Amino acid sequence: MREATVRLVDENAAGGKVREIFDDIMRTKGIDFVPRFWRALATCPDQLELVWRQLKTLMHPEAAGRAGKLDAKTREIIALAVSATNGCAYCVNSHTAALKKLGVDTETLGEVLAIAGLFNQTNALAEGYQVEPDVLPPLE
Amino acid sequence: MREATVRLVDENAAGGKVREIFDDIMRTKGIDFVPRFWRALATCPDQLELVWRQLKTLMHPEAAGRAGKLDAKTREIIALAVSATNGCAYCVNSHTAALKKLGVDTETLGEVLAIAGLFNQTNALAEGYQVEPDVLPPLE
Amino acid sequence: MREATVRLVDENAAGGKVREIFDDIMRTKGIDFVPRFWRALATCPDQLELVWRQLKTLMHPEAAGRAGKLDAKTREIIALAVSATNGCAYCVNSHTAALKKLGVDTETLGEVLAIAGLFNQTNALAEGYQVEPDVLPPLE
Amino acid sequence: MREATVRLVDENAAGGKVREIFDDIMRTKGIDFVPRFWRALATCPDQLELVWRQLKTLMHPEAAGRAGKLDAKTREIIALAVSATNGCAYCVNSHTAALKKLGVDTETLGEVLAIAGLFNQTNALAEGYQVEPDVLPPLE
Amino acid sequence: MREATVRLVDENAAGGKVREIFDDIMRTKGIDFVPRFWRALATCPDQLELVWRQLKTLMHPEAAGRAGKLDAKTREIIALAVSATNGCAYCVNSHTAALKKLGVDTETLGEVLAIAGLFNQTNALAEGYQVEPDVLPPLE
Amino acid sequence: MREATVRLVDENAAGGKVREIFDDIMRTKGIDFVPRFWRALATCPDQLELVWRQLKTLMHPEAAGRAGKLDAKTREIIALAVSATNGCAYCVNSHTAALKKLGVDTETLGEVLAIAGLFNQTNALAEGYQVEPDVLPPLE
Repeated sequence: MREATVRLVDENAAGGKVREIFDDIMRTKGIDFVPRFWRALATCPDQLELVWRQLKTLMHPEAAGRAGKLDAKTREIIALAVSATNGCAYCVNSHTAALKKLGVDTETLGEVLAIAGLFNQTNALAEGYQVEPDVLPPLE
Repeated sequence: MREATVRLVDENAAGGKVREIFDDIMRTKGIDFVPRFWRALATCPDQLELVWRQLKTLMHPEAAGRAGKLDAKTREIIALAVSATNGCAYCVNSHTAALKKLGVDTETLGEVLAIAGLFNQTNALAEGYQVEPDVLPPLE
Repeated sequence: MREATVRLVDENAAGGKVREIFDDIMRTKGIDFVPRFWRALATCPDQLELVWRQLKTLMHPEAAGRAGKLDAKTREIIALAVSATNGCAYCVNSHTAALKKLGVDTETLGEVLAIAGLFNQTNALAEGYQVEPDVLPPLE
Repeated sequence: MREATVRLVDENAAGGKVREIFDDIMRTKGIDFVPRFWRALATCPDQLELVWRQLKTLMHPEAAGRAGKLDAKTREIIALAVSATNGCAYCVNSHTAALKKLGVDTETLGEVLAIAGLFNQTNALAEGYQVEPDVLPPLE
Repeated sequence: MREATVRLVDENAAGGKVREIFDDIMRTKGIDFVPRFWRALATCPDQLELVWRQLKTLMHPEAAGRAGKLDAKTREIIALAVSATNGCAYCVNSHTAALKKLGVDTETLGEVLAIAGLFNQTNALAEGYQVEPDVLPPLE
Repeated sequence: MREATVRLVDENAAGGKVREIFDDIMRTKGIDFVPRFWRALATCPDQLELVWRQLKTLMHPEAAGRAGKLDAKTREIIALAVSATNGCAYCVNSHTAALKKLGVDTETLGEVLAIAGLFNQTNALAEGYQVEPDVLPPLE
């Protein structure tokens, strides 16, 4: 079975910068394997480093030594809502699993997706009628 | 200045079902005008009713006599993340204003958008490499 | 084989509100099974109810006791055009099947998709050049 | 006021292939000006030719000497549904105007957009749950 | 295994206009089979002709007797960036293969996708903040 | 005139980390003002830092002390193709200006957008028919 359009980097064979990042991913996420997404990015080590640094900073702020403004559940909810909107199979699966791990039940998952679905609908309606924004002062 | 591709229903001239829904919108949202979005939908009263019923149920559960699973801030965050992903000007403005009303500051708004931006990026990467999902049991 | 990220609600085991909606879906659509989409939504009964009520009203107006403005074929054509644009596998399959049931042949299907494809192209071009709209009075 | 990211080709100054296509656009559409979209494409004459030939064939089949399978209203409905989904201001305005010219009223326009909105919602839901298609034989 | 929602046109059984286009596709692309995409479009011969003429003109300019402005690698890079953005599995696979044939290595592929990912992110951010364009004169 | 949903950070009043990044943006890009996009991101300094570091690494590799695989024109072409696909006004304007600065003429710009448009079309067609990928070995 094909896993991606590139040959994934073997998690055991990786060396140097890739090895360090693979270890950091497993340690930060508390898992004992490297997800396929990161093994695909590792075919271009600079890209792996950029994306991981960013994801670690935003999604694992404590591990990055940073005080985030949002809690873990809210962060994963945003990830799922965006991924459902874009129709990305890998990311929907991955962030549904993350929400489950955080204790989210199917009713709550349903509400997240219902709201994401609702705004995909209203976005199409607002664009379909080309409605101008009501007046809004900038957020201070 | 044009406000939409249809002539918006005048909020004072509306009668019947439209009048009732306009009143319910202002009462439920605690505002004293009818936003343009609803005045555009009112050109097709059945549509106004369907969309408002759904939005009221999901975004104002207490008013709909329902116990929602998510709090108001999380609901608006989903709305903004989806609207930023789809690039809908009306909805971005409207839900940024709603978040401001709920006391969200610019640092928190920045984190919401940073995470929404990040997953638009990873969605494109996962699709761009056609990465297959890692194994995942269904959410019970 | 996995069918969704949630365990689908068994169509025979469903009770209460879900049971009633499942029966209404089969009766309204004239089918003898509950499609997976609805069995997934049923994990969050409120969501099932909201989406089904809306879909029944818009796509099966007679069953909802309402005079629709568009015929069944046009309604399904919109559904397919939107689903092809968003790249939603489930919905493309489902609405292609619905069009087939309505007697649409492959030449007509081809024309629907050709036109949907064309406007995905012109949308990208109009946005890519940031062309301002020509003057347009609102639709009366 | 800026009209596009390129300087639009002046409809009176155009010569050669561009002049012929501009004339064909006005004759085929029965209008006495060249819409901005085509004046932007004309900065790259090969592109103007490709897009116009395609749009003429699909949207004006009689003028292209071809028997189309769909009527003019259905064709414009697809154009609007796709453009609302993609949020393209130019195309939403242009195809709403075309529907108005064909005698479509605001109730019918509302139903078109309501159905387009509904499937943007169900697409996000089907993707958000990663629902597998129900079995479907190919369309013969 | 199902290959599409329509029964693909058999590449050996095709006659007339479809046969000619199938031969031109294989000759122009230097391959000895007709890709599934074209066999699906062939169910509506007019569509096959329109799309192939356009793709041949833009992606194989020499074969179309035309001097293109971009080289083959840049053209395929655009195709991949757009397809990753839209999440189209067929097209991502097909254009990754085309880039490989042109000698592109995984580091370069990674950079293409990293840049495509980055702008999916910045697009969401610019839309999420509704940032107005900085002043820009039209491209002469 | 409103410039964004947040009050942009004044480029002269900025201090600390934001000041340093603003200076780096102007120096790296060779411009004497800070574009609005960065002034909006600066309302959340961590986000400004993450996005700028990534954009500098990928789009200005020399300034980041890195050997990029793609030349400046190809990088900007990807940016424009993605932004046109997503319909992001700010980014389309900004990357059209960047291409102009690099000497790209309107014919070449037209070819970039024509190819981006073409693949938005073929993506919708491949998804609309649910065409399965032809066999493809992974990229070595």
